[in-house]
Amino acid sequence: MLINIKSRIKDYSIIIKKNSLRELSNLFSLDYKKVLIVTDDNIPLEYIEDVKSNFDYVNVLVLPHGENTKSIENYLKIQETLLNNNFSRKDLVIALGGGVIGDLVGFACSTYKRGIEYINIPTSSLSMIDSSIGGKTAINYKHYKNMIGSFYPAKGVLIDFSLLKSLPKRQLNNGLVEALKAGYIFDKTIIDEFKKEELDIESIIIKSIMVKKHFVENDEKEESIRKILNYGHTIGHALESIYGFSDKLYHGEAVGIGMMLINDDPLEVASFLKKLDIHFDEEIDAEQIIEFIKNDKKMHDEKIDLIKVDKKNGGYIDESISIEELKKIIVKEAHYVRYLR
Amino acid sequence: MLINIKSRIKDYSIIIKKNSLRELSNLFSLDYKKVLIVTDDNIPLEYIEDVKSNFDYVNVLVLPHGENTKSIENYLKIQETLLNNNFSRKDLVIALGGGVIGDLVGFACSTYKRGIEYINIPTSSLSMIDSSIGGKTAINYKHYKNMIGSFYPAKGVLIDFSLLKSLPKRQLNNGLVEALKAGYIFDKTIIDEFKKEELDIESIIIKSIMVKKHFVENDEKEESIRKILNYGHTIGHALESIYGFSDKLYHGEAVGIGMMLINDDPLEVASFLKKLDIHFDEEIDAEQIIEFIKNDKKMHDEKIDLIKVDKKNGGYIDESISIEELKKIIVKEAHYVRYLR
Repeated sequence: MLINIKSRIKDYSIIIKKNSLRELSNLFSLDYKKVLIVTDDNIPLEYIEDVKSNFDYVNVLVLPHGENTKSIENYLKIQETLLNNNFSRKDLVIALGGGVIGDLVGFACSTYKRGIEYINIPTSSLSMIDSSIGGKTAINYKHYKNMIGSFYPAKGVLIDFSLLKSLPKRQLNNGLVEALKAGYIFDKTIIDEFKKEELDIESIIIKSIMVKKHFVENDEKEESIRKILNYGHTIGHALESIYGFSDKLYHGEAVGIGMMLINDDPLEVASFLKKLDIHFDEEIDAEQIIEFIKNDKKMHDEKIDLIKVDKKNGGYIDESISIEELKKIIVKEAHYVRYLR
Repeated sequence: MLINIKSRIKDYSIIIKKNSLRELSNLFSLDYKKVLIVTDDNIPLEYIEDVKSNFDYVNVLVLPHGENTKSIENYLKIQETLLNNNFSRKDLVIALGGGVIGDLVGFACSTYKRGIEYINIPTSSLSMIDSSIGGKTAINYKHYKNMIGSFYPAKGVLIDFSLLKSLPKRQLNNGLVEALKAGYIFDKTIIDEFKKEELDIESIIIKSIMVKKHFVENDEKEESIRKILNYGHTIGHALESIYGFSDKLYHGEAVGIGMMLINDDPLEVASFLKKLDIHFDEEIDAEQIIEFIKNDKKMHDEKIDLIKVDKKNGGYIDESISIEELKKIIVKEAHYVRYLR
């Protein structure tokens, strides 16, 4: 399946095909002298070998897995690897991994000699659904998520569902929270999928990609409606900043809690999160969350662009909420996290 | 005088007006809550005060002057200053300084929360003519110039010739080499200006800006003809890498030598460089230069995009030159530097 994404920066395509790593070069008509694969130490060696088999000259850089890898240090490690191997702007980088690898590699590529192309091969449900599409790249800085970054789409994105086999169940479910979000903000049939006994993961992911395509094509630089994709993320990012650098809370899990606290039917959200086996044992500390939100990218004039959802019409932006009012909402809704114990 | 620059990223305007720092806000219709001025310790305090007078809430970050300032450390210092003062994507940064400040600030702005706007106020002839226009931003890394950067035009550029008063003569002349280059590659009337007894600096700068406009509007991302602006720069950058981190050789001076070595009439180039009081006491070490060029951004497949000029038709790209042939040219022409002793 081929999905084209229109972009003001440059159009690119998503190819969805199982067991396709060894066909990568053909699928995207790649013709490059030098290729660098950047991946992490959780990615099975056979995936790396399969990608390598497409090219004659390949460097591989294996970084540690985990959110801490999205650092300025690893950003510079990629720059150095490219520089030490004399990569020009006409060579290619391949990001093979989850959102951490995709975001980091995308940012490094957007700035190496002012831009080298990259192919993104997301290996997690989260990155297939969300971070691999839309051109956002970033690293974390001073404990704030995605504080430094750019808009720089991949040349192409390969979605290979067979890679999900090796993904731990918790990771798989973590990604599906973003699909749930896509359901709440735009495509109610995704919500219906979550009500089924057995989840049809491939169908859920494809539908979610189409939702993401809609928003990024209509507002690539997140000046208006793309903000709706941040449903659950304002509180989610804060929670992730507080708990996420350990393994206590993954990105999707944090977003799930964020959605639950800003939803007219928090019990329904809780029921989906429980279905995805998401647990949270902590108390919500509104004060601490608000401190992090003050440095969120979406804040201006002491107001926050808060994303809400309407059962009928999906997601919308409420620009009227002050930071104090948000704090009240969090305090009022915080007790719902007990359903996730 | 108003010059509009068309850009695929975003159009922007250059305003040329003397003694205009206190009018900055009116000239560009600026309406921002928070402003950060980034400048260096060579910039007169009165300039900073004049810019400050336009706004209510202003932070100022003063960095050391000189090429070493274009570092990852100072890049992060800007990010931290923005972060610590809660700057959002809707606030403004002003670069007040030469090309070093403009390139560094532009790069920092292109990546802070994926993009905050900036106004560029070049204070040197070099940055007025060259680096403030065309959207290239960059920092140096591992002794290689502009190794990390982006394409990210300023929201606006203010050219105030009265700022040149405070510029040391050597700096002023250094910038005029880029004007000489503009003459060689595109506008012969600039060469005629250089033949005059007394240089009309304002006229030379305006003509040079129009040359730059032509090239960046027709090839913003430097995929084809914009490369012609690099006339003299391949060797120039290498010389700058070798000598420039001391004060032995400024950027324009290095480019001047680079132009002289790749010109059918090296003696004419030398005569203009002498007129600009440019001196160079070293021997040319072709081996060392070639080592640096191998990491130049314009290299691919062991060939180099070498820019040459034709007396009749101006600049053109010669893609056929191998690194070995370039070395031979350098060895053959190196003796002309004796005219600059």
